[in-house]
This record gives sequence, structure tokens and C-alpha cells, in this order.
Amino acid sequence: MLTSVKDKIRTIPDYPKKGILFFDITTAIKDAETLNKMIDFLYNTFKDKNIDYVAGIESRGFIFGAPLACKLNAGFIPVRKPNKLPAKTISESYELEYGTDSIEIHEDAIEPGKRVLVVDDLLATGGTAAAACKLLKKVGSEVVSAAFIIELDELNGRKKIEDTGIEVVSMLKF
Amino acid sequence: MLTSVKDKIRTIPDYPKKGILFFDITTAIKDAETLNKMIDFLYNTFKDKNIDYVAGIESRGFIFGAPLACKLNAGFIPVRKPNKLPAKTISESYELEYGTDSIEIHEDAIEPGKRVLVVDDLLATGGTAAAACKLLKKVGSEVVSAAFIIELDELNGRKKIEDTGIEVVSMLKF
Repeated sequence: MLTSVKDKIRTIPDYPKKGILFFDITTAIKDAETLNKMIDFLYNTFKDKNIDYVAGIESRGFIFGAPLACKLNAGFIPVRKPNKLPAKTISESYELEYGTDSIEIHEDAIEPGKRVLVVDDLLATGGTAAAACKLLKKVGSEVVSAAFIIELDELNGRKKIEDTGIEVVSMLKF
Repeated sequence: MLTSVKDKIRTIPDYPKKGILFFDITTAIKDAETLNKMIDFLYNTFKDKNIDYVAGIESRGFIFGAPLACKLNAGFIPVRKPNKLPAKTISESYELEYGTDSIEIHEDAIEPGKRVLVVDDLLATGGTAAAACKLLKKVGSEVVSAAFIIELDELNGRKKIEDTGIEVVSMLKF
């Protein structure tokens, strides 16, 4: 089952820049069966974990996080790039290869003590996802897990997230 | 039912600039019941329409389009802002208040003749959604409908889309 899903993911060399192999999920999610297998993997992993909110990281994390939230009967929280959310926000910055970037949620997005699952399409170095976990903890959430469709094993992003005390789940390792 | 969903949408005056009343869906989608009512509205409207693909417009359109695609057992196509898609793209530009912007899909995203539903969170002036409809037609899709959670009635975006020969559906009018 995992092989058939893996085969639907297209790899594109030298994108967005030379030396990077980009994992393109668009070829997978355009196939209804594959899309549903991905969501079902996440659903089956977390259905008994009492998830209150799924927090999806902009923007490909929305594609997996929102269907999962619906299926888990949880709320959906968009974790967004700066200056995209209209009300008062709280942010967390993280390091890029050159410089820093940050992500935001609404200050009133989540009531303290709620059980939150962080979702994104792909775990690479883990910078954004670790920042999302820290941000959610900062507003008092209990971050249950960070879940990904694809994990790029050798970049070791898993460790960056586990170092914040949060478990990592991925469907496919490359 | 519609009133209870409407009540969950927060309005924020003067965002992103003075004189604009922003309709904030984050307060609605964080409520699992409301999120599912929104998706169910779209699902019930289109379940018998033989939709092959749901095309969600970046990025809030992903939040509604992806769960709908799963439920309809359709594929999901992200309609993205420029320079976000890794493979060869085809684009369509549209006018903004000052200047122009454009949206893209992968050139090989959709096989000609497929039945596609365009989804976004909100219909305002309709510029982006009309461009998405044109873009999908350009690659040979049969665009079945453009569907929105919120329609801002007095901005008359509906006409801009209907002028391209495509039907408009919205859940909530403001």
C-alpha cells in the first residue's frame, strides 16, 4: 500500500535551486484514491488520541490538515506566514539557511490545555514544524504529535522536533 | 443552520486596509461542527455532479477544497500563486485595484475533458476565481461550477464568473 502511494509522488531535481531534489505531492493528491489513503493513514493513527485541533502549516499543510480535522471531528487551525491573519497574532521565528522567517497563529486561536496535532506535507530540516510546535506550546496547547506525509530521513528534522519533547509520525520515508 | 454558521464568522474592520471589512473564517473552522457543516453543504450540492477534480485556490481555498475532494472521491488540484509549483506551469493573470497578479497550475495537472469544481473561501470581486475558471478551461477542463463559503453580494463577483459561462454557488451571503 505504501509503495503505491510513494510511486505517485514526483521528484523534481534542482528545484527550487541547484542540488535540491523536490518532492512534488501534486501528482499524488490529484489521484482521489491516493489522497484518501494519505488522509486515512493520518486518521487511523490519531483517531483514538482525542485530538481537539489539527494545526496545518501554510500552505500544503492545509491540504492534509483540513480533511484530517473534518474526519477526526476536530477544529482546524491555520498556522500562517507573517501578515496573513487578520486579528491579533502571536508568532515564532526560525532560522533559514540565510536569515530567519516566522509563522503565526491568532492569539485567541486555541484555549489553553487543548490537545493539538501539527500537520504538514513534508518533514525536511524541521525548522518550520519545530517553530509551530513551540508556538502552540506558548499558547498553552498540549501538542500531541507532529505528523507528515513525507519524511526526508537524512535531513534529520525528526530530531529537531523530538528535542522539543514532541513525537513525530510520518507516512513515507525517503 | 445557516444562521449558526454565519455567527461563527468574525468580521474585522479596516483589514487589510481602511474601509475594508474582512470576513475571518478562522473562528468558524476552529469549531469542528461548523467546519463539517461547511464541507457538508458543498458535498451535498455536488455529490451527484460527477466531479473528477476539485481545484482549490491558494491558500484558504485549500482548507475547503481538500476535504471536499476527499468526500467526493475526487482528486485535488492546488491553484497557486506564481512560482510555487515545481514543474512546468500554465498561468492566467487578472487585474487588481493597482496592477495585476496571476495564478498557476501545472501544465499536466488535468487531462482534457475532466469535470472540475473551483473552490475558494470567499467571493468578493471575483477576479481570482474568474481567472481560475479561465485557466482550467484553457487546459480543456469542463468547469462545472465555482463554489464559495461566503459571497459578498454587493461586490457582484458572481457576475464576473457567470460571464465566463460558469455557474456560481455560495453557502452564505453577506
